[in-house]
Amino acid sequence: MHHDMDDEIQATISSILTTRTAAAHLHGADFSALWKTTVECVSGGKLLRPRILVGAFDAFCADAQPGLQTREPVLQMAAALEILHFSFLLHDDIIDDDLMRRGEANLMGRLLVEARTSPWSVVVGDELPARRLHWARNAGLLVGDLMLTLAHQLFARVQVDRPSRLRILDLLDATVTETVAGEYCDVSLADGYLGSDPDLVLKMTCMKTAAYTFELPLRLAAVLAGAQRSAEDQLGQVGRRLGVAFQLQDDLRSAFESSNVHGKDDHSDFREGKETALIAYARSTSAWEQLRPLLGTQDFLPSSAPTIQCLLTECGARKFVESKVADQVEAAMQVLMDGDGELPAAVRDFCHEIIGKLESGAL
Amino acid sequence: MHHDMDDEIQATISSILTTRTAAAHLHGADFSALWKTTVECVSGGKLLRPRILVGAFDAFCADAQPGLQTREPVLQMAAALEILHFSFLLHDDIIDDDLMRRGEANLMGRLLVEARTSPWSVVVGDELPARRLHWARNAGLLVGDLMLTLAHQLFARVQVDRPSRLRILDLLDATVTETVAGEYCDVSLADGYLGSDPDLVLKMTCMKTAAYTFELPLRLAAVLAGAQRSAEDQLGQVGRRLGVAFQLQDDLRSAFESSNVHGKDDHSDFREGKETALIAYARSTSAWEQLRPLLGTQDFLPSSAPTIQCLLTECGARKFVESKVADQVEAAMQVLMDGDGELPAAVRDFCHEIIGKLESGAL
Repeated sequence: MHHDMDDEIQATISSILTTRTAAAHLHGADFSALWKTTVECVSGGKLLRPRILVGAFDAFCADAQPGLQTREPVLQMAAALEILHFSFLLHDDIIDDDLMRRGEANLMGRLLVEARTSPWSVVVGDELPARRLHWARNAGLLVGDLMLTLAHQLFARVQVDRPSRLRILDLLDATVTETVAGEYCDVSLADGYLGSDPDLVLKMTCMKTAAYTFELPLRLAAVLAGAQRSAEDQLGQVGRRLGVAFQLQDDLRSAFESSNVHGKDDHSDFREGKETALIAYARSTSAWEQLRPLLGTQDFLPSSAPTIQCLLTECGARKFVESKVADQVEAAMQVLMDGDGELPAAVRDFCHEIIGKLESGAL
Repeated sequence: MHHDMDDEIQATISSILTTRTAAAHLHGADFSALWKTTVECVSGGKLLRPRILVGAFDAFCADAQPGLQTREPVLQMAAALEILHFSFLLHDDIIDDDLMRRGEANLMGRLLVEARTSPWSVVVGDELPARRLHWARNAGLLVGDLMLTLAHQLFARVQVDRPSRLRILDLLDATVTETVAGEYCDVSLADGYLGSDPDLVLKMTCMKTAAYTFELPLRLAAVLAGAQRSAEDQLGQVGRRLGVAFQLQDDLRSAFESSNVHGKDDHSDFREGKETALIAYARSTSAWEQLRPLLGTQDFLPSSAPTIQCLLTECGARKFVESKVADQVEAAMQVLMDGDGELPAAVRDFCHEIIGKLESGAL
C-alpha cells in the first residue's frame, strides 16, 4: 500500500479532528484541552482499517479511475473506521484498567500525567492519587462516547445514493453490535462468568476484532464502488477469515517474537494473562499446571518468558494456533477462487497482496 | 399530554427494542440475555423527552392534521431520544459507581442480582464479589455503547428530505457533544479537578441536562414540522431556559420534598453529596461548616435531613435557586413573546402548558 494513500487518509482524519477540536472550545478551555490530548492519541495509528478500505476501493476502480468527487466519501469512511477503532480501544482499555497501549501511555495515562502537573483545585490529601485515576478513567470513558458519536456522524453523512447509504448504515450497525458482543464475551471470560475453551476464544476473537478490522472495510469498499451484493458478500467472507487469521497471527507474534518485530511491549500478553487462543488451548493440556502461576501475575518476570514460550510450544498450543491461521488463510483463498469471477481481477490481486503481508507480518 | 401519546411512544420503543433483542440472539444466549435485561431497564421511564417532541410537533400541525406517514419519523425520533437518554444515564451511573437509579436497581444492579444466581463458571473464591461487580460494570458500559449506537442509527435513518436530515444530524451532534462536555465538567467537579462555584454548576447543569432534555426535542419538532429556522431557534432558546429551570426545580424537589412527591430515594442527593446549585451556593456561606460533615457520607442518617434542609434555607441557597428557576421561566416567557408571531399559537400554548406543569411539578 502506498505512502500517498497514508498521507491522504491521515490528512482526512486530521481535517475532521481539527474542525472538531476548534468547535470544542465553545464548551470551555478544559474540554478543549481534553480534545487536544485525544487528537494526539488518535494520530500515530497504523491505519490498517482505512488502508484496507481505500486499497480495496481503488482495486475495484482500477480500470475506471474515479474522479475526486467519488473518492471523498471513501476517505470520509476511512477516517470514520480509524475513529471507530480508537473508540473501541479506549473502552477496551477502560474495561481492562489499562493505562498503556502498545508500550505507550494511552489517553488515560496521558491525562494522569497532565493531572499531576495541574493545580488540582480541591485539596483531597491522601485521596488525591485515587481521585486523579477516577477522573482520568471517567474522562476516557466520555471521550470514547465522543469518538463513537463522531464515527456514527461520519457514516450518517456519507454522500452516496440512498440505497448505498442504508446498506452502509446496516453494515455499521451489524458490525458495532458484533464487536460489542465480542467484547462482552471477553469481559465474561476475563471475570470468570464464562469458562474458557479454545472454540469460544476463537469465536470471541472473530466477533471482537475480525468483523470490524477486515470484513467491514472490505464490504464498505464494495458498496462504495457500486459492486453487486453478491460480490460484497464474497469479499465479506474473505475478510472475516483474514480477520481471524490476522488476530491469531498477532497473538503468536506477541507470544514468540520480540517487541522489535511486533511493536508491543515485550510479553505484555503474558504479563496481563490475556486469554488468547494459545492460552485457551494450553489450559486443556498437562502443561497448564506449570504455565498457570507464570501468567498474569503482578510481579511478572521477563526471565520467565522463554519457559512460557517453551511450554506453549511443547504442549501443542503453538501448533494448534498456527494450524488455525493456515486454515483461515486457505479458506479465504478458496472463497476468492469460488466466486465465478464476480470480483474484478484487481480486487482478487489486492486480497492476495493482503494475504502475503499477513503471512510475512507486514500488515 | 395524552395517554394515547404515551402508548404510541411506548409501542414504538418496544417495537424497536424487540427487533433488536431478537437479532441479538445471533451472538449467543448470553448476549441475548443481556439485551432482555436492558429492555426491562429502558421501559418504565417517564418519557419526558419523547412527549415534549411529539407534543410540540402535534402543536405545529394543529391546523393541518398530518397523516400517519408524516408521523412515523416523529415517533422514531421520540424513541431515539428515550434511548439516547438511557445511554447517558447508564454511563453516568458507571461514572458515579451507582447501582441504583431513582430507588430501583439500575442495569448494573440487576446484572449483579442475576450474577449471584448464575453458575459462575470459574471458582475465584474471595475475589468473587469483586469480579462480579467488575463484570456488571463493564457489561453496563458496553450496553451504554450499544444504546448510543442505536440512537445514532435511528437518527441516521430518519425518513425526511435531505436538508432536514442534515439539520437533524447537526442537532444530534451538537447536543451529544454538549452533554458529554457537561458530564466531563461534572466529573471534574466531583473529583476536585475543578473548584465548585454556583455559576459553574449552573453552566454544567445547562450543558449536561437542559440541552438534550428540552432544547433538542423542541428543535427537532420544529425541523420535522417543516418550520423556518428562525422559529426553530426561538423554540430552542425557550427550551434551553426551561431545561435549566426543570433541572433546578428537580434539585429543589429532591432536597425539600419527600420521595412520595418526586419519586427518587429520600435524600439521595444529600447521601451522595451531589454538587447541585444549592450546595454550590451554600459552600460560600457560613452554613457550610455545619453542612459539610452531614453530606456525602457513607453512614448518612435520614434524621439529619431536616437539619440540612433548615441550613440550606437559612443560608439563602434555597432562595437563590428558587430565584434562578423564576428567572429562567421568565426569560423563556419573554422569548415566547418576542418572536413576532413566528411560532404558531398552538406551539406557544404548548410551551405555556409545559411551563405550568414544570411549576406545579407535574412534568
